[in-house]
Amino acid sequence: MKVTVWNEFRHEREHEEVRSVYPNGIHEVIAEFLQTAGFEVGTATLDEPEHGLTEDVLSQTDVLVWWGHMAHHEVSDRIVDRIHQRVLDGMGLIVLHSGHFSKIFKKLMGTSCDLKWREAGENERLWVVNPNHPIVQGIGETIELEHEEMYGEHFDIPAPDELVLVSWFKGGEVFRSGCVFNRGQGKIFYFRPGHETFPTYYQEPVQKVITNAARYVAPVKRDKPVYGNAQPLESL
Amino acid sequence: MKVTVWNEFRHEREHEEVRSVYPNGIHEVIAEFLQTAGFEVGTATLDEPEHGLTEDVLSQTDVLVWWGHMAHHEVSDRIVDRIHQRVLDGMGLIVLHSGHFSKIFKKLMGTSCDLKWREAGENERLWVVNPNHPIVQGIGETIELEHEEMYGEHFDIPAPDELVLVSWFKGGEVFRSGCVFNRGQGKIFYFRPGHETFPTYYQEPVQKVITNAARYVAPVKRDKPVYGNAQPLESL
Amino acid sequence: MKVTVWNEFRHEREHEEVRSVYPNGIHEVIAEFLQTAGFEVGTATLDEPEHGLTEDVLSQTDVLVWWGHMAHHEVSDRIVDRIHQRVLDGMGLIVLHSGHFSKIFKKLMGTSCDLKWREAGENERLWVVNPNHPIVQGIGETIELEHEEMYGEHFDIPAPDELVLVSWFKGGEVFRSGCVFNRGQGKIFYFRPGHETFPTYYQEPVQKVITNAARYVAPVKRDKPVYGNAQPLESL
Amino acid sequence: MKVTVWNEFRHEREHEEVRSVYPNGIHEVIAEFLQTAGFEVGTATLDEPEHGLTEDVLSQTDVLVWWGHMAHHEVSDRIVDRIHQRVLDGMGLIVLHSGHFSKIFKKLMGTSCDLKWREAGENERLWVVNPNHPIVQGIGETIELEHEEMYGEHFDIPAPDELVLVSWFKGGEVFRSGCVFNRGQGKIFYFRPGHETFPTYYQEPVQKVITNAARYVAPVKRDKPVYGNAQPLESL
Repeated sequence: MKVTVWNEFRHEREHEEVRSVYPNGIHEVIAEFLQTAGFEVGTATLDEPEHGLTEDVLSQTDVLVWWGHMAHHEVSDRIVDRIHQRVLDGMGLIVLHSGHFSKIFKKLMGTSCDLKWREAGENERLWVVNPNHPIVQGIGETIELEHEEMYGEHFDIPAPDELVLVSWFKGGEVFRSGCVFNRGQGKIFYFRPGHETFPTYYQEPVQKVITNAARYVAPVKRDKPVYGNAQPLESL
Repeated sequence: MKVTVWNEFRHEREHEEVRSVYPNGIHEVIAEFLQTAGFEVGTATLDEPEHGLTEDVLSQTDVLVWWGHMAHHEVSDRIVDRIHQRVLDGMGLIVLHSGHFSKIFKKLMGTSCDLKWREAGENERLWVVNPNHPIVQGIGETIELEHEEMYGEHFDIPAPDELVLVSWFKGGEVFRSGCVFNRGQGKIFYFRPGHETFPTYYQEPVQKVITNAARYVAPVKRDKPVYGNAQPLESL
Repeated sequence: MKVTVWNEFRHEREHEEVRSVYPNGIHEVIAEFLQTAGFEVGTATLDEPEHGLTEDVLSQTDVLVWWGHMAHHEVSDRIVDRIHQRVLDGMGLIVLHSGHFSKIFKKLMGTSCDLKWREAGENERLWVVNPNHPIVQGIGETIELEHEEMYGEHFDIPAPDELVLVSWFKGGEVFRSGCVFNRGQGKIFYFRPGHETFPTYYQEPVQKVITNAARYVAPVKRDKPVYGNAQPLESL
Repeated sequence: MKVTVWNEFRHEREHEEVRSVYPNGIHEVIAEFLQTAGFEVGTATLDEPEHGLTEDVLSQTDVLVWWGHMAHHEVSDRIVDRIHQRVLDGMGLIVLHSGHFSKIFKKLMGTSCDLKWREAGENERLWVVNPNHPIVQGIGETIELEHEEMYGEHFDIPAPDELVLVSWFKGGEVFRSGCVFNRGQGKIFYFRPGHETFPTYYQEPVQKVITNAARYVAPVKRDKPVYGNAQPLESL
């Protein structure tokens, strides 16, 4: 199984505060723990040609992980369409944190994907509300994050097909933090945590959720459904 | 409550076979029974300026009914964006039959909305699978249509929030024919029947479903959620 | 439309602390605001014959509101079966607060309906996560309750058909607080707030949610589906 | 992984017509293909002590397969409660065909689980409506069964968490034939085909669906959620 970790990779190069947490970029940290978990892993970033997501790379990717924030608008519509088609054709997609506002997530959701936010470094506690879900295998009742950006409801998404995690924030908000969506033959997992100034992706339970999710959203091997004009299967 | 019935209105002008069924256009037939049901109703068509869907018209529309087929690609992206925003802001949307491939429906669903089809005039039977749903109030166990175009699974939509009707076709297919989706503050109802060469919209149960749906997808009066940067509600 | 408000009515008679808040019983307070909202309202309590829920009363009830806590086990199984059948036949049911552990709710859910709880009088904030839902018509982004009992996840219910409200608690928990379920032809709304020692049911937004819910879960007028042996509708 | 296949095992012993199809019982045929697929498989039948489902057997069972029909009422409530608890604690359950009316399925659903039926040996075609679901891995667009009993809507179940298959019947009906439900920590799959007089469980695609389902409903390894009185996680 092949996972491609895509990262905007701008904050880490432009902001010392972020670089000190993720010196080689968020993608390298995510790629490393996924590799350790046994996946074949590649990375891709915004400033590579075609954002590193050529037809070739995508066609060989089973699961794409997406982290973006400050440069969503710089992602080319052509590449977004390509990713979109691959998801409908079965590629899994894991959208992290500020990726809620990425072109690809909004295109797949059909909504604004807007939310409340606050950068106060408050603590977040993610509660498992779906205790038989494979994505929380090995996870306790909660995931505790000492410092995170707050995201609050209303989160303008379609009702998720599976709601797995709900966050509590010190400042008074709640948030649907772990959400599964099916679109076409593809599975999508949105996972809230991961502000660039905090070492969230070094936390073991966060890594476990993303690892479990990579397995969960992996393509199911089936022929694509046939669309278009159809002969009757019974006599008319 | 104000309903706007939008129709592409091409088949009726170009094809005698269709004109003989809907001489003034499909929109006029739909508008009439909705008016009889007590709604304030307007119509709009593709070839009017801004497709008849100016900011003014849309801002006063509580529920938009959509029929289109041969000219989906002629609907301007700017107008589609306008409708999309109005749905997210609460306007109800009823998408009929071949509207499954309209730009607005695909944009709201995030999927290809593809399906199987066959024009053989076979009979269709819609089964109620959600018997406590307001959209089937007054409807029996089935709706029988003597001649219809076939639409068959797989229908490439997100799993509907509410699955109300499933069709049986003589030729051997099934189809999720009555589907409710929530997007933003808007409610959407997709309703399968209504091929332009058959007098489907003259059938009383079909009219009742569309009438019930217009009530069901009407906006809920609430202030729009507040998005963006948020002050803490509790001391940090 | 006829609403019957059922209350265990024991705490109010046995505990001075509760009586001081609800001198005539929780049911009287709920009945009053529902009457003001225009419903025909009756009440019934545990210690009446047949718990006040005779065949006659139930057959004329469109929506049943349920509050119980310390005496769930005293509710007769025969009456629970009767209520259950009425819900499947279309009667709406609103289950409040500690009613999560009532026999009727557990029978309808098929799960333990267990949860975490704490009586510390902490503040609760209910967030609207489904802003186009009729049950939150007229409700702001949150409902603030200064003092409430805490209920925390995991709440052992089936995934609700519609998740409307999620609670934040000062002590660190979240809870799915407003949940719609469809069972048979009946609609069920579970609404979390309402500990007996706090004046929760005097709060205007709480009253509005329950009033909206009474309208929402009201029966849809349709013939009951036909079950059992069926003749073919097409030639075999 | 340990699968236990439970069968009422009465038709096969009492009716020559059934015995000729399943000489050693339906359970033996199902057990055999599951074994071939690599599971450790045991069987249990109604007339064994405790119906073959002792505490010991159930506690070691990861997935229970259930076939019953003419003797649902002979299944002891005590054993049903035991199975119910095991499902809530994580054991997977696959309910086949006429098991829709079993005590355990009705208890988990909370509804009547009633439906239409007809024994005419007509053909059934199951359509995949959820093409990215692991349960239909390796399955084509349809499963064709030449002779089957008909089950028709309305099927009185809660809306499934995942609707995977919808059946078409020659006689004019449709049916939600492959349905996933989550209850507590357990996953349940209802799969319609399998009338005792037809060799349905010898069909390769039917075997594949049941095999896939056994993997899908297998327990997720996690500690059980903690319920009851809870200390605050934050200072009040």
